Amino acid sequence: MRLSAFSDYSLRVLMYLGAQTNRLATIAEIAAAHDISKSHLMKVAHQLGRGGYIETVRGKGGGLRLAHEPQEIVVGEVIRQTESDFTLAECFADKSTCRIQGACCLPAILNEALKAMFLVLDGYTLADLLRTPGKLMPLAGCDLTIGQGKKAAPTCMRS
Amino acid sequence: MRLSAFSDYSLRVLMYLGAQTNRLATIAEIAAAHDISKSHLMKVAHQLGRGGYIETVRGKGGGLRLAHEPQEIVVGEVIRQTESDFTLAECFADKSTCRIQGACCLPAILNEALKAMFLVLDGYTLADLLRTPGKLMPLAGCDLTIGQGKKAAPTCMRS
Repeated sequence: MRLSAFSDYSLRVLMYLGAQTNRLATIAEIAAAHDISKSHLMKVAHQLGRGGYIETVRGKGGGLRLAHEPQEIVVGEVIRQTESDFTLAECFADKSTCRIQGACCLPAILNEALKAMFLVLDGYTLADLLRTPGKLMPLAGCDLTIGQGKKAAPTCMRS
Repeated sequence: MRLSAFSDYSLRVLMYLGAQTNRLATIAEIAAAHDISKSHLMKVAHQLGRGGYIETVRGKGGGLRLAHEPQEIVVGEVIRQTESDFTLAECFADKSTCRIQGACCLPAILNEALKAMFLVLDGYTLADLLRTPGKLMPLAGCDLTIGQGKKAAPTCMRS
């Protein structure tokens, strides 16, 4: 049970843009900062643009920026848009072959569990992911020392 | 984001055994009832045996049965044992390459969401999955009409 790389990268792009509010960022620098392929990130940025989370300024000196304040971007909503597959079990799929579907309570129970999960994710915004801006800011200048040493312990409390 | 087929099949085996308490069932009949390969089900049954959920009676006329009453088998505990991968994002993995790990609050938030999900799953037992035994019982005789017609609407209320 894991989120797609697409969701993971979408959140990383949003965090990158949220950690630097005074300038535009390019796909190339985000790709370099996170060591992710540019072509993959272009799809991610396209989807985030369609979802209204980021804006693109075209032309020389152009780039990406958040379309809203970090505290207005809800983590649960982002994941709902970027995650393509919520078929928690085979019986969730349109073409399920399970012989006991319709007589089984598992889908209802899994749906309740999924709702509980998103209730938590809907309680956090991008601003909560950026609680340690001092540690994330070096990424803006592509100083990639973060994460290469011992893990720090950020304070991740609910707002 | 989906459960593994292994978890899905484990729950189906438990439901099959829970729907018929008066006799032993064989891997072959469960495989036929659910149209799942026998070799796959043997691994599932082995793991369920190791977890203490089912018992195997060997020899002629032998087979499988639940090791506990359905109301003693907690859905969340089963899924914890059968699901091998809870690395919700890449940063959960031992060999994560994320450049901002240690400075990012996403793991803490995803962990909280996962806990909320299991809090729901821990509130249900196998007995809750068997709320419509009348509809599930025909499986015991391999009457496979269930699920091939219009979906019924079982009553899946929390106990």
